[in-house]
Amino acid sequence: MHECTAELQAIVKECGLDAGLCTVMIRHTSASLTIQENADPSARHDLERWLDRHVPENDPHFTHTSEGPDDMPSHIRAALTSTTLSIPFVEGRLALGTWQGVYVWEHRTRGSARHLAIHIGP
Amino acid sequence: MHECTAELQAIVKECGLDAGLCTVMIRHTSASLTIQENADPSARHDLERWLDRHVPENDPHFTHTSEGPDDMPSHIRAALTSTTLSIPFVEGRLALGTWQGVYVWEHRTRGSARHLAIHIGP
Amino acid sequence: MHECTAELQAIVKECGLDAGLCTVMIRHTSASLTIQENADPSARHDLERWLDRHVPENDPHFTHTSEGPDDMPSHIRAALTSTTLSIPFVEGRLALGTWQGVYVWEHRTRGSARHLAIHIGP
Repeated sequence: MHECTAELQAIVKECGLDAGLCTVMIRHTSASLTIQENADPSARHDLERWLDRHVPENDPHFTHTSEGPDDMPSHIRAALTSTTLSIPFVEGRLALGTWQGVYVWEHRTRGSARHLAIHIGP
Repeated sequence: MHECTAELQAIVKECGLDAGLCTVMIRHTSASLTIQENADPSARHDLERWLDRHVPENDPHFTHTSEGPDDMPSHIRAALTSTTLSIPFVEGRLALGTWQGVYVWEHRTRGSARHLAIHIGP
Repeated sequence: MHECTAELQAIVKECGLDAGLCTVMIRHTSASLTIQENADPSARHDLERWLDRHVPENDPHFTHTSEGPDDMPSHIRAALTSTTLSIPFVEGRLALGTWQGVYVWEHRTRGSARHLAIHIGP
């Protein structure tokens, strides 16, 4: 999980709008978005381990395996979390709670570059 | 699960816009949002019990336990449901289906005050 | 899972806006939305089977059973996936990744007509 809150915040700031809505979409089906606790890293660790255990690699029911054992779990993990998030902002600041951070969640073992589409409106 | 459909509907009404989009974000990582069946309470009961059983307290894999046994399950349950929702409205009314209600879902055993950020645009 | 990417794209095109945000909400609690792999159908098949196995019919814990064994699983499966999605568009085209499609996911055994509310803004 890679935090991208600061980058998003900078983009919102740069837009110059006082208040509005920032929508983020990840343009992939084997990675996802989540808003999670940004303080104690053990919370993210436990969350990742929970998903690893409940959507494991090498599940004998999987048939979509040509790209390797981490391919199908990555699609399911993405479907269970978020592909799009819409975050209000006020006075140029994302209205996230104190302990909230926005994360790109890579579900492949070896991730490559990931792309987000971002929309900002008043 | 606490229904907040009527409050949201009142806020949309108050805005005076005929049509647009109402986005709600919960500013916490141990509570979440969901749109669920608003008629028979047994559906929400079963949904809560399913999540309780699949993301139980006292899972021996959890390391993020300093705030008590309900802390880590609450983050996972929030990640599996929704932090942001965007609901179109028409003629000043949320375009929800007949059986849909918007719920704030408290995942801690002893919840405190919860805050939503709401954006309404044309 | 029924793909609706082309219909959404056509609606966006028709609006005549160059760039903006397209928000989709499904007006039901026993069907949902997801953005998933649009190439190899085996990925969607495995995803559906995973959810079938983890939220099975005839779970003895379910009490909301008056509408049949597929009723309660459909609400849980909907809560675990998405009810609303917001997709940015640029030059009249949804900014989806190459392998992303938008799907209506019917969770009842015998689905009926399903309705989406769609909001498009600049």
